[in-house]
Amino acid sequence: MRFCCKLFTLLKRSKTLTTSATAAMESDPPRPSPLRTRLCIIGSGPAAHTAAIYAARAELKPILFEGWMANDIAAGGQLTTTTDVENFPGFPDGILGLDLMDRCRAQSLRFGTKIFSETVTKVDFTRTPFKVSSDSTSVEADAVVVATGAVARRLTFPGSKEYWNRGISACAVCDGAAPIFRQKHLAVVGGGDSAMEEANFLTKYGSKVFIVHRRDAFRASKIMQGRVMANPKIEVVWDSVVVEAYGEGERGPLGGLKVKNLKSGEVSDLKVSGLFFAIGHEPATKFLDGQLELDSDGYVLTKPGTTQTSVRGVFAAGDVQDKKFRQAITAAGTGCMAALEAEHYLQEIGAPGDSGRDAPATPSLNATAIL
Amino acid sequence: MRFCCKLFTLLKRSKTLTTSATAAMESDPPRPSPLRTRLCIIGSGPAAHTAAIYAARAELKPILFEGWMANDIAAGGQLTTTTDVENFPGFPDGILGLDLMDRCRAQSLRFGTKIFSETVTKVDFTRTPFKVSSDSTSVEADAVVVATGAVARRLTFPGSKEYWNRGISACAVCDGAAPIFRQKHLAVVGGGDSAMEEANFLTKYGSKVFIVHRRDAFRASKIMQGRVMANPKIEVVWDSVVVEAYGEGERGPLGGLKVKNLKSGEVSDLKVSGLFFAIGHEPATKFLDGQLELDSDGYVLTKPGTTQTSVRGVFAAGDVQDKKFRQAITAAGTGCMAALEAEHYLQEIGAPGDSGRDAPATPSLNATAIL
Repeated sequence: MRFCCKLFTLLKRSKTLTTSATAAMESDPPRPSPLRTRLCIIGSGPAAHTAAIYAARAELKPILFEGWMANDIAAGGQLTTTTDVENFPGFPDGILGLDLMDRCRAQSLRFGTKIFSETVTKVDFTRTPFKVSSDSTSVEADAVVVATGAVARRLTFPGSKEYWNRGISACAVCDGAAPIFRQKHLAVVGGGDSAMEEANFLTKYGSKVFIVHRRDAFRASKIMQGRVMANPKIEVVWDSVVVEAYGEGERGPLGGLKVKNLKSGEVSDLKVSGLFFAIGHEPATKFLDGQLELDSDGYVLTKPGTTQTSVRGVFAAGDVQDKKFRQAITAAGTGCMAALEAEHYLQEIGAPGDSGRDAPATPSLNATAIL
Repeated sequence: MRFCCKLFTLLKRSKTLTTSATAAMESDPPRPSPLRTRLCIIGSGPAAHTAAIYAARAELKPILFEGWMANDIAAGGQLTTTTDVENFPGFPDGILGLDLMDRCRAQSLRFGTKIFSETVTKVDFTRTPFKVSSDSTSVEADAVVVATGAVARRLTFPGSKEYWNRGISACAVCDGAAPIFRQKHLAVVGGGDSAMEEANFLTKYGSKVFIVHRRDAFRASKIMQGRVMANPKIEVVWDSVVVEAYGEGERGPLGGLKVKNLKSGEVSDLKVSGLFFAIGHEPATKFLDGQLELDSDGYVLTKPGTTQTSVRGVFAAGDVQDKKFRQAITAAGTGCMAALEAEHYLQEIGAPGDSGRDAPATPSLNATAIL
């Protein structure tokens, strides 16, 4: 994890997007509406771009909506909110999250993906061709890949933004191994299985790990609670919330937290070099408006081992359908699966389509589908 | 796809391996036997190394057996038998398969993976700690990831080796988009769903696609046969086998095939620039000696959406458990999943282990497991 702030990250990315969006507008003829494509991809992270790379190489000429500050983060997804990525295979020296996503995006474009820097606000999956729309563009597609991701929930308090990526993280697996956390005191906020697992995990690196929990009991499973309680490096701070984060000296990274006990009202000092939020994720599925089956946490349900959703011809990849692994490389893997499953589906339905050239909509696939 | 022959590929890789194996021998003290580790990984492709990267970053100090010409291919897996890889996300200009695997291997080593260039000949999964052995090294591990891959079946006839990677391929999805196949006549050998799908797929690139099949009927599903028969760019050459491949001129790539009709005995000429084998894959599971549940084709069965095998604590990732997607990026994704599931399992069993330092074996986990 390198020390650069998120604001810089967002500005840099916004500039890239503006440039590419402008370039697209300058070079393209006025858009007929709706556009017609074999495959429309919604998303901008590793899942979306891997789907696009595979689909574009398969001559599906996919249209991809990368969004514009969708989920309040820049196109490129959650990797744009981190710095060094050390666990994406193929980059032995690590790579900046932004750079990795720029490379994936360039790869999508290389093979012919058409990218719109607009956020999808509406879909219609009730009949084919499916409809996908932003405020200014409407697309009709024979198949759709939903790869809109999820955003880690974070708490907001004085210092929470300032020390983001400078000691504060929402992914122990991704960031825990960073040198700044080695042999240091660390804190985890949360009370579920993830919080237990992350606290245990962080004891590999930190000399002590505090779990700050707002209640007097965890909701985690018995077994994971047992592991935490038996771990001599872990100490639980019950009934408490973080109310402030402060730095190590004037310009240093995270140096500690002010923690308030909700029962006594007392505020105490917790000197830690790391704070990890483990309070869940918010999948970006609201725009679906209930048209795909979701689980109780709002994630798109897929048939296990596939990317198939409850609507035939609509596939879901990446964190929007994965609350378990949530890694860039697993997202990329499911993006590939989605493209291959979409390709197979398109072969099966044998829709005429027009391989993505802009053209008037063809009649509903139901007329030609033989399944 | 670039024009370099497999022999060169193997020699280059063998040299790398010899060097690293020698280095390991020079720098390490004599090995006590058996070695003890939290996690042992068997394999050398994207799945194995992604598992190793995640496990090593999680301080599991994994031991990885990359094999020595296991499955008759160099360590690095099937990517070492190809040339340019264009569809691994993060490499917009493509990357040589060998280079990608060298980078993944370097990344595993960077975080502390211990690599043995020896082929696993025997495992014992009947009790914990599990045993994994090559001819010269024996390892006891609390958890194991099997990522030994699969090898595409190829036919052998005069010219089949000479034109491998110079027009002959076993992966239409990987190689079909290469310029040498654009607007050319191509051939597919096979009669199952994969052959149908690959033939249809290849009509995106080639001007005509011949399916050479040794029987007078396909075993493929009706729907996929229907797609093939309805495709005006596809022609089936029934009852026939390829008996020779020849070049385009003296030193050119593949120029055509000699095809023998098995009923008439007649040998005819088929001018094609590409030949794609679609006759299945052979998963590398023989060394398991029936200790994991396999499917009827010999692939390791995993619980869908996970890497869990029939033995708790043993995980399978990559092509050894995937006959559907078989891509480097999907393999890498499942490698990550296997490492995270192994980490979770190790937290749950709470085995003491010793984080991979060489030490005498601890008693069976059964004594300490609480599940």
